[in-house]
Amino acid sequence: MSEKSQPAEVKRFLEALQSSLAAGLEGLEAQARFLHDPWTRAAGEPSSGAGLTLILEGGGVFERVGVALSEVTGASLPPAATQRNPQLTGRAYRAMGVSLVAHPANPHAPTAHLNVRFFSTDDGSAWWFGGGYDLTPAYLYEEDVAHWRRSARQALSMLTPEGVASFERACDEYFTNRHRAERRGIGGVFFDDLGPSHSQGGPFSHCFSVARAVGESFLGAYLPLVSRRKDTPFTEAQKRWQQWRRGRYVEFNLVWDRGTLFGLQSGGRAESILLSMPSVARWTYGLPPDLGPEEHRLLDALRVPVAT
Amino acid sequence: MSEKSQPAEVKRFLEALQSSLAAGLEGLEAQARFLHDPWTRAAGEPSSGAGLTLILEGGGVFERVGVALSEVTGASLPPAATQRNPQLTGRAYRAMGVSLVAHPANPHAPTAHLNVRFFSTDDGSAWWFGGGYDLTPAYLYEEDVAHWRRSARQALSMLTPEGVASFERACDEYFTNRHRAERRGIGGVFFDDLGPSHSQGGPFSHCFSVARAVGESFLGAYLPLVSRRKDTPFTEAQKRWQQWRRGRYVEFNLVWDRGTLFGLQSGGRAESILLSMPSVARWTYGLPPDLGPEEHRLLDALRVPVAT
Repeated sequence: MSEKSQPAEVKRFLEALQSSLAAGLEGLEAQARFLHDPWTRAAGEPSSGAGLTLILEGGGVFERVGVALSEVTGASLPPAATQRNPQLTGRAYRAMGVSLVAHPANPHAPTAHLNVRFFSTDDGSAWWFGGGYDLTPAYLYEEDVAHWRRSARQALSMLTPEGVASFERACDEYFTNRHRAERRGIGGVFFDDLGPSHSQGGPFSHCFSVARAVGESFLGAYLPLVSRRKDTPFTEAQKRWQQWRRGRYVEFNLVWDRGTLFGLQSGGRAESILLSMPSVARWTYGLPPDLGPEEHRLLDALRVPVAT
Repeated sequence: MSEKSQPAEVKRFLEALQSSLAAGLEGLEAQARFLHDPWTRAAGEPSSGAGLTLILEGGGVFERVGVALSEVTGASLPPAATQRNPQLTGRAYRAMGVSLVAHPANPHAPTAHLNVRFFSTDDGSAWWFGGGYDLTPAYLYEEDVAHWRRSARQALSMLTPEGVASFERACDEYFTNRHRAERRGIGGVFFDDLGPSHSQGGPFSHCFSVARAVGESFLGAYLPLVSRRKDTPFTEAQKRWQQWRRGRYVEFNLVWDRGTLFGLQSGGRAESILLSMPSVARWTYGLPPDLGPEEHRLLDALRVPVAT
């Protein structure tokens, strides 16, 4: 494949991925359907581009789920996008990606996030992939966590046998609310700057395969968990706990997520960036008053050593 | 007053201010009382210090209100605290302040925020005050806004006749969700770096008087609005709108507020910093579906020109 045709190839994959993700999630809903919201941004703003946002709110299974495809071109790569390759800062670029965040209604069904993205300089001489998926339950089911982790490992172990463990570590490190000494969720896989110079990278065909494997294994990793938990009976207190955990989700996304902060502060499309917000989030001073052993078990699983 | 005695003098004021603010707010509550949570942080962390957090949750009038007093000393003034005086970056410092955020239960009663803070270098050679208060209603009552603005002007117009207008402009500029092209609320007063070199500043006694006037005029500006609206009948849709507006409040505090972001990212005490969060916040894709003319009237009042 020529360097010039790489972005077109990735874009075809991302368009197909968005469709299949939305179809898979919609398959669990009896009635609610995704709203399709195409958008464009004119040149002259910090970046120009176009996208298709799919959003489903108030479903029986999903309280809120967004699947966003976007493609932007910009005159100057921002420092936030080139932390490991500072020599690329300021180069004209093209970026495209699919992001998904699914917040189920049932507190026993976990929230999930997926992202696959591709950056290239306008002459095609430099490029890299980023992406991954991570799971954020309000209640801990070991068999769900095991299925989630096994799915990710199976998808990636042939392509990058040594990469899996490092992608898992990167996921735990990245999705952490450092101000709470607490991980956002129970893990998954995460990578960035996957290109020729990455230790798990290599030629385009290899890196693209890794990104594809992440995107294509997501539904198999996630849908069974939602199917299994979506009809579990729950109490009002359990629903409040889910909403309280979603307050932590909001904190991570707005305080620590580089993409979100950079996007909002640099004039990105707020509604697309904030697809990741839950419908409802809740805060209390300290822990909620009525926690039982199951809520504490989740908190224990998320605790991380305090950085000194 | 000698330079060395200034921090002690400010601290006595802030302690009295915290007590009187809490007593004033509690006076509107039939039963709920502030929980008192004193805390200390050992030396060796990025900053050491102590504070007293007063928090009331689940009251009949206030869904959540925090009044926090804190005092920290640090070995090195961070850049975020010295934007206008970069020559002070890295100096050992002492900082103290009172912060208040009150989120009423009734959607017709507005949220209010107050802050008064004092920074000084450890040798007392440089010092400044910051602070202000701003109002965030979910429904627009012109007479409430007029009372709020009049209270602030009356408190400050004798001390700094030219300062009032600039403090009002600074408030509008600062409390803006730039990614939404929307102000957080309908305004108030805000100032920073108020010391000898500030155009509205001057000697310590003058600047301290301005800070005192802000703190001491708050209850008179705010309590009448809560008294007037706390028993207004409201619908479930109006309550949802208030929670949706509180999603915007969360966005401002976590994405744009310098103090919050700096505090969380540098290891500050998360529970104290996040006193400003509402009990419940809500998000939808685009505007909620069921807005009427009163909701649109508020949105119109908050709209700001899009920065180009």
